[in-house]
Amino acid sequence: MKTKPLRAVIIGFGNVAQKLAAMLTEERGKYPGLMDLDLEAVAVFTRGHGGLVDPKGIGLGKALKQFREDGAFPAAPISALQALKTLDYDVLVELSTLDIERRGEPAVAHVRAALERGLSAVTANKGPAAFAFRELRCLAREKGGRFLFESAVMDGAPVFGLERALAGCRVSGLSGILNTTTNFVISRLEAGESMESAVRAAQRLGFAEADPSLDLDGWDAAAKTAILANFFLGADIDPLRVERQGIGGLAPADAARAVKGGKRLKLVCRAWMENGVARATVRPEEVPAGQYLAAVSGKGAALRLETDMMAPFWVVQENPGLADTAAGVLQDLLTVALKVPVEGGAASR
Amino acid sequence: MKTKPLRAVIIGFGNVAQKLAAMLTEERGKYPGLMDLDLEAVAVFTRGHGGLVDPKGIGLGKALKQFREDGAFPAAPISALQALKTLDYDVLVELSTLDIERRGEPAVAHVRAALERGLSAVTANKGPAAFAFRELRCLAREKGGRFLFESAVMDGAPVFGLERALAGCRVSGLSGILNTTTNFVISRLEAGESMESAVRAAQRLGFAEADPSLDLDGWDAAAKTAILANFFLGADIDPLRVERQGIGGLAPADAARAVKGGKRLKLVCRAWMENGVARATVRPEEVPAGQYLAAVSGKGAALRLETDMMAPFWVVQENPGLADTAAGVLQDLLTVALKVPVEGGAASR
Repeated sequence: MKTKPLRAVIIGFGNVAQKLAAMLTEERGKYPGLMDLDLEAVAVFTRGHGGLVDPKGIGLGKALKQFREDGAFPAAPISALQALKTLDYDVLVELSTLDIERRGEPAVAHVRAALERGLSAVTANKGPAAFAFRELRCLAREKGGRFLFESAVMDGAPVFGLERALAGCRVSGLSGILNTTTNFVISRLEAGESMESAVRAAQRLGFAEADPSLDLDGWDAAAKTAILANFFLGADIDPLRVERQGIGGLAPADAARAVKGGKRLKLVCRAWMENGVARATVRPEEVPAGQYLAAVSGKGAALRLETDMMAPFWVVQENPGLADTAAGVLQDLLTVALKVPVEGGAASR
Repeated sequence: MKTKPLRAVIIGFGNVAQKLAAMLTEERGKYPGLMDLDLEAVAVFTRGHGGLVDPKGIGLGKALKQFREDGAFPAAPISALQALKTLDYDVLVELSTLDIERRGEPAVAHVRAALERGLSAVTANKGPAAFAFRELRCLAREKGGRFLFESAVMDGAPVFGLERALAGCRVSGLSGILNTTTNFVISRLEAGESMESAVRAAQRLGFAEADPSLDLDGWDAAAKTAILANFFLGADIDPLRVERQGIGGLAPADAARAVKGGKRLKLVCRAWMENGVARATVRPEEVPAGQYLAAVSGKGAALRLETDMMAPFWVVQENPGLADTAAGVLQDLLTVALKVPVEGGAASR
């Protein structure tokens, strides 16, 4: 199964990208399952910290060490978009962060540039599948590349990789807890901590953004819900079309009241079809204690899928870390490297 | 994606087989996802109620009606094993029940007969993968057929279909609640009901066998655990090698004591590697309330997978019915019909 090296253009070199680079280089011996993946980066770009371009390969391990030492790369000779349009590579690895105000750009343009050339795009950035799912999926099929985003929802835990397992079924609805930061913050509110202090704790632990409103206002959850609705329900929506209520207005007393009533407060995502139209919501809900949603604590996440054939089932993730997000990217890279055929499954309508 | 009809030999015509036949005929309109599956049975065999053989196709809908009316088929002209060795067909659909004392026979011999001819075998019977996993998987690879058993554990919920989703990972351990009847019975014990009455209720509801010892003594759970260990951990064990303790000795007081201590009593399956050797256990455990295992109620099931790369994740199934078991068989039949390539994933070591 050994394949020739997969040449990648990497965009973004934050925590996830650095973890990915480490797993592919200095930590590689820990992961025998990566045997089949031989990846060579021909370029890496950051938003404000330069980039590297070398058609013969930048050397991912060396680049990682350099970035750790210097905190930056030198200024890149060309822009990311120029690189994607002109360099010789197989796959774009898009690891920048979601920008709701810019409707997923520039990640959408990056993915489009790769797919238009018949190349593949693997994105942990939720923007492309949240704002341009249908266009990009069509483009991939038309040109013969792959458009993959396993780590956009629940990291490497099986979500979009479930297509095979759902053969013969149609997904009719979905729900879940998909945003780590809000779930963590609500757990702290239950313990009597203030919103401000809980958010600071999430920042200190490294999983809330410096500007936490993307999480607290429900945008991250809405983006994930839009992707799931697009993929599993054949919808064509974006995060702005998700009815959205964040947790910013919650106080410890709200969480305490829920617990007292035998319930737990959770930011719940839902998507379903109503008269042939997809509807999606993200809002705080009180869920009964003792049920699966209530058991999602700390940094966990859970997704419930309803189908036309089977009893509802769940995928539940315990406390993921950076390696989990990198794992989703690695799964997608293996799909590209091993030329796994396109599924004709639940989302192929 | 339309393919030529898949010719099947069906063994067993109990509840699951009849549901499968109904879904493929009279209920077909409810399942647009089955569009790609055109199945024609050339033979069906039961243990004590005759069988049908017709190389031109028995007509599954007609056979179902006949069996419902007469409660039996006429005496079959040849044996199931003769049919598997001589008829022209593509796939064996093995739907008989597990026989622990006979070490999975005659289902193991049935699957072997199909695979030896380079044909495929789909089995809901746990025997073949529990007692002869390594031999049968090798045989399938050698001869070019498929050996599939998605419905053997958690029905159609994604278990063995997770291979793609686990690309790049190695599974290092697993645990879960996998037997419906014992979970249901323990729930009744918690409500103060006696063991005898709880078992009778499970029988009345149609999911415990007339002889419930296969469930109560932990054999069904041990068979599932052996299959999971063989598939995910590369083990080579059978149910007799699983350290097993059933729930037959439990009383309502045991369940009540657990609840009083903030816990729930569950029949928990575990498998892990210890110094390169697979170990597996099935035994009643007290699990903390509020955690996922405790939330598995009634007929539900849950499987937790630990990997070398990601945080542990779960697949959880809510109250499955006959359609769920049939769904697992249909997924496997689609894998055969659509010639989905063999995965090089977690269980390929």
